[in-house]
Amino acid sequence: MDPGYTPPEIEWCRLRQDSAASDGPYVADIVAKAIKHIGVAIGDLILDLNVISHLFTGPLLKDKQQVFKETTLNSFMGLTKPHWSEARATIQNLLDINNNILQDNELREKAFLKQSEAIMHLPGDIGDYTDFYSSIHHATNVGIMFRSKENALMPNWKHLPVGYHGRSSSIVISGTPIRRPFGQTQPVEGADPHFGPCRLMDFELEMACFVGGPPTKLGERITASQAEDRIFGFVLMNDWSARDIQKWEYVPLGPFTAKNLGTSISPWIVTVDALKPYTVPNYPQDPKPFPYLEHSDPFNFDIKLEVDLIPDESQVATTICRSNYRFLYWTAKQQLAQQTITGCNIRPGDLLGSGTISGDTSDSYGSLLELSWKGTKPLHLMNGEERKFLQDGDTVIFKGYCVNEHGKRIGFGKCEGKLLPPLPFE
Amino acid sequence: MDPGYTPPEIEWCRLRQDSAASDGPYVADIVAKAIKHIGVAIGDLILDLNVISHLFTGPLLKDKQQVFKETTLNSFMGLTKPHWSEARATIQNLLDINNNILQDNELREKAFLKQSEAIMHLPGDIGDYTDFYSSIHHATNVGIMFRSKENALMPNWKHLPVGYHGRSSSIVISGTPIRRPFGQTQPVEGADPHFGPCRLMDFELEMACFVGGPPTKLGERITASQAEDRIFGFVLMNDWSARDIQKWEYVPLGPFTAKNLGTSISPWIVTVDALKPYTVPNYPQDPKPFPYLEHSDPFNFDIKLEVDLIPDESQVATTICRSNYRFLYWTAKQQLAQQTITGCNIRPGDLLGSGTISGDTSDSYGSLLELSWKGTKPLHLMNGEERKFLQDGDTVIFKGYCVNEHGKRIGFGKCEGKLLPPLPFE
Repeated sequence: MDPGYTPPEIEWCRLRQDSAASDGPYVADIVAKAIKHIGVAIGDLILDLNVISHLFTGPLLKDKQQVFKETTLNSFMGLTKPHWSEARATIQNLLDINNNILQDNELREKAFLKQSEAIMHLPGDIGDYTDFYSSIHHATNVGIMFRSKENALMPNWKHLPVGYHGRSSSIVISGTPIRRPFGQTQPVEGADPHFGPCRLMDFELEMACFVGGPPTKLGERITASQAEDRIFGFVLMNDWSARDIQKWEYVPLGPFTAKNLGTSISPWIVTVDALKPYTVPNYPQDPKPFPYLEHSDPFNFDIKLEVDLIPDESQVATTICRSNYRFLYWTAKQQLAQQTITGCNIRPGDLLGSGTISGDTSDSYGSLLELSWKGTKPLHLMNGEERKFLQDGDTVIFKGYCVNEHGKRIGFGKCEGKLLPPLPFE
Repeated sequence: MDPGYTPPEIEWCRLRQDSAASDGPYVADIVAKAIKHIGVAIGDLILDLNVISHLFTGPLLKDKQQVFKETTLNSFMGLTKPHWSEARATIQNLLDINNNILQDNELREKAFLKQSEAIMHLPGDIGDYTDFYSSIHHATNVGIMFRSKENALMPNWKHLPVGYHGRSSSIVISGTPIRRPFGQTQPVEGADPHFGPCRLMDFELEMACFVGGPPTKLGERITASQAEDRIFGFVLMNDWSARDIQKWEYVPLGPFTAKNLGTSISPWIVTVDALKPYTVPNYPQDPKPFPYLEHSDPFNFDIKLEVDLIPDESQVATTICRSNYRFLYWTAKQQLAQQTITGCNIRPGDLLGSGTISGDTSDSYGSLLELSWKGTKPLHLMNGEERKFLQDGDTVIFKGYCVNEHGKRIGFGKCEGKLLPPLPFE
């Protein structure tokens, strides 16, 4: 069951309304029509925004209804934050029990479909994708493993959000299987490299934000304090990683083929407006960052994250990690400021990955590399098996949700992928 | 003057035909129409393929004429090598002196325009951009400067084409000015970082190839021996680099904001068919690469490259580098094989940068970092000035051309950009 599912608060016709209802636009391929539509989750149903685009009659959107007829969210994301807020208010109003527009039988029939009958697609065309490295616990763990406790964090790490450009083409929607890759590795330090299937396949528990607003021009910067209108919303992301390939290839220019084999994201984008009730203070930063990276408002969120692992032909899921988005040292606003500090232009639909989100306890580490501490501490699964790294057939499922003190929840759905054996090399 | 301009061999109407005529499709915004068209260079004119799309009546293209009506070359690049060859043959046939189709006055009037009246645009939408590091002289020079002569090349360098994912959004067409960026640097090793304008701005002399053919699926590989049908053609590329920013930010995940401030390419794509007469043997490789990187045919080209530097308000250009594409250790086929070895999918229009192309003599180094040997050997310009790194107002012009023993030339045009002072920080 989707951990983000909200127990019904209001019964209305056969539909349920929850606080996430108007915050999860995504793209669904409605099978019968064989076209992609933008939709919003309402319990286990989807409200098809293509069908009700004419109902966006607010002052900002009445001339922009076309964005809801498109096959991705890019045009909608390319509007402004007030447009996004108006869309949210319009949908909430339409779903109000006292509003009878959607209670018209004919419209209702066309406007809703079951989530179980929809095929999910990427919510946007991702022009550029950047992956950051913003969890202090993850960076420290990796630094200890590959260097030493004294030199765990690189000198630049607390001064800027370290990141690198990733591959857009291989970002796939949750559910897409991932192949164990072939590649070069160096099993023995100093010896000749080896070519063959990756032996240290891993996941990385991440979240990612979609950049919104009109495209910027080359040379323009967006400081952290200007970034409020530029972060559209968040998804779950699995940055599948071939650890042994990465170790051999990554000097001096960074990860390349160890990462471009596939990156999975969840189809739902939960908007910043929807996350606001779950805001928590930013992670304390010392030293104080340069002014372009500073913002005084909190932009950190209490998003509970879980990783389940299901071995092949087993129905038994083991939750191997419980982490939280709030553990990130650098905020998404600071990531965007770093992305653009040298004048790099952005486009709506760009994706910024958080980096692996590890907490400070060994059961909150966001990768098998850390959970098994480089393979030295195997994990025990519920079905009796052990894992150091992923085995062929393993399914990895990320879940994310927020819940407040009254039990009110919003969910990110899930980000799921199965690791398939490598394709034979011809 | 464009170094690739071919002295007229055939006089026909007012038009000139050269061997490059059918090999340089690009996108021109015809001002009067204010729309982007695909065109081919004929001397100082452009043949507008949109206008003559109905003349592509060969067996492969007769049902694909629409690709010539589009505003980028992506759809054409997404066809197959036989399609590209048929287009080339069709254009060559239309330009034959014995073919009178284009001698019709009305059609001729519509089909040709002056290069000087066209605005150049990027030839394709670049989905993903990868930058390699494939010149052994460049990698060795940088290694000596930052490590030592004994450890100049990293252990992986001769086993695989090292590369990293770059930023697509900031790839711009020749002529676009580039701003000196602000960023973080660490002027004194071990001390606190500094924030301010980049002080070590540099160019990198590169070429890049556009990937062609239908998109591949996630998980598919293209080995070097299968890559012949996948390289569409080549452009010149300036990978502008903020050296001081790069040095501070690049550990451990590689270059990021030091590179995404702008990457310039020349508008003409010279196709592989057109380059074939200028093929030279591949660079000798020892050790022998793994089979997925092997191809027996030569895929290296004698492309002469020059870098001119023109200080602000000076008309005096100094040629500060003469290099050659043939110096590359790894071929574009091997780069593509590396790009896809772990199953990364490719799309037509993807761009693969060669890395800085340095020769083995100090006047053939492809960056100021190397030419001035880290600033220790200033360059003397024709107007009496000196340069260690770029100054605001400097214009950098790359030129590239092939010439055979009979003096027959094909040209890449030029890749030009002016460095502007930084935008003030608000």
